[in-house]
Amino acid sequence: MSKAEKRAKFEAVFTAIRDELVEYFKSQGMPADATAWFTQNLDYNVPGGKLNRGLSVVDTVEILKGRALTDEEYFKSAVLGWCVELLQAFFLVSDDVMDSSITRRGQPCWYRNEGVGLIAINDAFLLEAAIYWLLKKHFRADKSYVNLIELFHETSFQTEIGQLLDLITAPEDKVDLSKFSLERHRLIVLYKTAYYSFYLPVALAMYLCGISHRDAQDPYALASSILLPLGEYFQIQDDYLDYAGTPEQIGKIGTDIVDNKCSWCINTALAVANPEQRAVLDASYGRKDAAAEQRVKDIFNAVGVHEKYAKYEEDAYKRIMGLIQTIPEAGLGVEGEVKLKREVFVSFLEKIYKRQK
Amino acid sequence: MSKAEKRAKFEAVFTAIRDELVEYFKSQGMPADATAWFTQNLDYNVPGGKLNRGLSVVDTVEILKGRALTDEEYFKSAVLGWCVELLQAFFLVSDDVMDSSITRRGQPCWYRNEGVGLIAINDAFLLEAAIYWLLKKHFRADKSYVNLIELFHETSFQTEIGQLLDLITAPEDKVDLSKFSLERHRLIVLYKTAYYSFYLPVALAMYLCGISHRDAQDPYALASSILLPLGEYFQIQDDYLDYAGTPEQIGKIGTDIVDNKCSWCINTALAVANPEQRAVLDASYGRKDAAAEQRVKDIFNAVGVHEKYAKYEEDAYKRIMGLIQTIPEAGLGVEGEVKLKREVFVSFLEKIYKRQK
Ligand SMILES: [Mg+2]
Ligand SMILES: [Mg+2]
Ligand SMILES: [Mg+2]
Ligand SMILES: [Mg+2]
Ligand SMILES: [Mg+2]
Ligand SMILES: [Mg+2]
Repeated sequence: MSKAEKRAKFEAVFTAIRDELVEYFKSQGMPADATAWFTQNLDYNVPGGKLNRGLSVVDTVEILKGRALTDEEYFKSAVLGWCVELLQAFFLVSDDVMDSSITRRGQPCWYRNEGVGLIAINDAFLLEAAIYWLLKKHFRADKSYVNLIELFHETSFQTEIGQLLDLITAPEDKVDLSKFSLERHRLIVLYKTAYYSFYLPVALAMYLCGISHRDAQDPYALASSILLPLGEYFQIQDDYLDYAGTPEQIGKIGTDIVDNKCSWCINTALAVANPEQRAVLDASYGRKDAAAEQRVKDIFNAVGVHEKYAKYEEDAYKRIMGLIQTIPEAGLGVEGEVKLKREVFVSFLEKIYKRQK
Repeated sequence: MSKAEKRAKFEAVFTAIRDELVEYFKSQGMPADATAWFTQNLDYNVPGGKLNRGLSVVDTVEILKGRALTDEEYFKSAVLGWCVELLQAFFLVSDDVMDSSITRRGQPCWYRNEGVGLIAINDAFLLEAAIYWLLKKHFRADKSYVNLIELFHETSFQTEIGQLLDLITAPEDKVDLSKFSLERHRLIVLYKTAYYSFYLPVALAMYLCGISHRDAQDPYALASSILLPLGEYFQIQDDYLDYAGTPEQIGKIGTDIVDNKCSWCINTALAVANPEQRAVLDASYGRKDAAAEQRVKDIFNAVGVHEKYAKYEEDAYKRIMGLIQTIPEAGLGVEGEVKLKREVFVSFLEKIYKRQK
């Protein structure tokens, strides 16, 4: 199946669950204006992204089972995939309000639509509520039901902790580089991105395949020990491309420097800058001013951010590949159950390694 | 135990669970600034209200069991009570942002504190996340665990639907009384207030007491059939007192008219206003202007809102008392289990009937 066909098949499941949610609204006696608003909230905010996180649930279930999925298996995997996309939509809709962002996925941020404004905050809540409504509808009879719910709860909490760290470390309107450090950056990335983007989709797929927790050599702990470093690598790459990638490569113009982002690049530069360079960074980072931005970029170049990133990427690739190799060749898990396989992680790593966008 | 002693005992449980949550933050390696922020979020937003909803979980468990609670029973009831207060804090912190409110519970709204601003949105999420973290910590081994989680999910969804209805019916900056009706008012009140303020605390207490669902004569369905009308009566009373109560009675100055609230009073007036009165209401409702407010109040008086409320209150009291009497005198439920008792509802109703504040 081509990438476009895979995406279309996945999107068809969105249409189905969107209709279920809208039907529920109607069944509760909601008037037409409220139902239309909720429908628009779902259609505008959930399906328009790259869908990497949602699709990776389906991909992982396929790899774990080692065969094509039945229609029912596909549908359930895709519902969980869309629950990840709903969680992301909940975070993005509210993040855009908090950051006063202008556009998202090539269209105005939801809150910037006529008549929406701060109602977007409650709309974000409704996107989150849809997750648990769908889990109940489609998984209540499953052995994994409680695990699925708890995983969404825990991941949400972690991501919100990451948001908090990010918001108090790097407020857009108050530059204070003394709060930055590579350690702080690591914590933000882990909590704000890695858990929900990398661990969550794989762990959902594992639960769906009936993989059990174990006291020793827990497959979920092992998966997490690989996927969190992978998520960290992914975000560091994202930070690096924001600074070093051309707009043709990354499909947008990088704004991390002018937006006072707590990015890997600034933290790497701060760690080695001499007092003069530090003074320039303090005076120029996070300013909405192209000349200031250029001064920051010059220092990034001077302190060797390019070279440090190249070395980081090689090291990260080898380190993560080494972690993957700790999984037994025949898979990890209980005899008679679906086993955790190296291939799940290799496929993620190869998608990320040396990517240019 | 006096009312103040009851409150102090309940507040001591908040201190305990606040400390548990803060310890969890620290155990995750969170830096001091993030931990302090989260602690402040909890302390500022959770415990300062009337605590009616939280205390009613404890009260209901005591009535259902018909005896004093053991320390462990008290603690678990109080944890569920604080989960209701956390849910309310989640809603209030975000509602104040959406409504651009100034004060809450006699202090500035959280988002108006120095340095907070829209970070309050994520802080509201964290208050919600704390609910599920506490449920897992204290109830994971309980038979009722899934029911408790699902009840919080469903009630959150309902309340958010109510918020949506309210926000699109009565935006503060765009008065359009053609959207108002008593039917719309009923729907808003039911979803925005009655489920989480009345049904949720009682149903939590019922689950904690081990009351089972039944196909016929389900005690939860019966409780809901009484508590939703009770919640509606409570809110209508609240709306009426906002218009008719003196500041000394209600402890604040009513602002529903100038705030364009979809209140029972305006909907009652709209239902019977003649064309001239209607024109005055259209021109004067929701204006930040004391003369316009007075014109609205004059029409409320002229169309008989006082008399209609007095009649409504008598009817509601009798109707709800009649519903309560459908519960068998010996209680409703399975032999050998704790039974649902009339007294739970009578105690609620008597607290509300003819209250002046
Ligand atoms: Mg943002
Ligand atoms: Mg942000
Ligand atoms: Mg980026
Ligand atoms: Mg409000
Ligand atoms: Mg409001
Ligand atoms: Mg009121």
